[in-house]
Amino acid sequence: MQQAPPQRRLAAILAADVVGFSRLMGADEEGTLARLKALRAELLDPAIAAHRGRIFKTTGDGLLVEFASVVDAVNCAVRVQQGMRAGALVLRIGVNLGDILIEGEDVFGDGVNVAARLEGLCEPGGVALSGSAWEQVRDKLAHKFVDRGEHSVKNIARPVRVFGIDLGAGAAAPPRAARRRRRWPVLAAL
Amino acid sequence: MQQAPPQRRLAAILAADVVGFSRLMGADEEGTLARLKALRAELLDPAIAAHRGRIFKTTGDGLLVEFASVVDAVNCAVRVQQGMRAGALVLRIGVNLGDILIEGEDVFGDGVNVAARLEGLCEPGGVALSGSAWEQVRDKLAHKFVDRGEHSVKNIARPVRVFGIDLGAGAAAPPRAARRRRRWPVLAAL
Repeated sequence: MQQAPPQRRLAAILAADVVGFSRLMGADEEGTLARLKALRAELLDPAIAAHRGRIFKTTGDGLLVEFASVVDAVNCAVRVQQGMRAGALVLRIGVNLGDILIEGEDVFGDGVNVAARLEGLCEPGGVALSGSAWEQVRDKLAHKFVDRGEHSVKNIARPVRVFGIDLGAGAAAPPRAARRRRRWPVLAAL
Repeated sequence: MQQAPPQRRLAAILAADVVGFSRLMGADEEGTLARLKALRAELLDPAIAAHRGRIFKTTGDGLLVEFASVVDAVNCAVRVQQGMRAGALVLRIGVNLGDILIEGEDVFGDGVNVAARLEGLCEPGGVALSGSAWEQVRDKLAHKFVDRGEHSVKNIARPVRVFGIDLGAGAAAPPRAARRRRRWPVLAAL
């Protein structure tokens, strides 16, 4: 009756998406897609490759990437956000650690869902970590981590502790129009 | 000037050792080694292989094993402890999760050191997990986890939260002489 148990693997999952993608697409479909394609080719894909990440899913406006190490995933996320040019698309990036299920090339489990939810809790232009990801890098990376408290997230039984990375002056500045809002600045008109 | 950063990998590290090994060796060197060899061949090595573990270091009285998943490592640890026969050698097993450094076949980092220290904090015949390992299995495995609080451990800056697994009636009963002691029962004379 019992099937063989599915294969498991510890992984750092990085979820990235473009802030306000639907609205941007509504305003300029071809231009937005061209910008996303350029962003991937010039910044995202090279940074992921340099940190030994594997893209296992692309959504219309984002990516899910698996890394063997949380240190690698966070270094990749910071490199991407610091490499973003003002006025270009703006990304949110979440990083989680999970004991995930592997099925061929695909990856399943709460570890993936939490990464995607973290990304939604992330400030535009920022990087958000789960508590378990933070624990693996807090003493290994010199970033300033900011405790953003516990958050209930959809379809996840337990609240998730969220830590932001203070990217400081090195971070891509949000576009001027966005800076006027106190939080969750939306993308300035392209 | 900068060297390439070392390669990192998320892993569950299992550390196992024989309780009272030096004393047992003092009493019966050849008999103890024969028992340890039999224990490895009949129980430990098959359980490790079945859960896709990789032994990366053997010490006189123990093993360090790397697993890709905490679920696999804990299932292996429980299978070993439940498979121990009363009167045989008694093991302590610690399981930690770490973002470790890889150098050829060898594995380094706090993640390994903490696993070895956990094993020292484990009850004979038991399994001890770090907080970060526990977090990955608490909702995935049906064991009863017992919070044993925070412990300072040698050469590790932060205290380590320790969880034991209550192996209940399924666990190998400690030898009768040991059962009389309330805690840390030592091995009955072989």
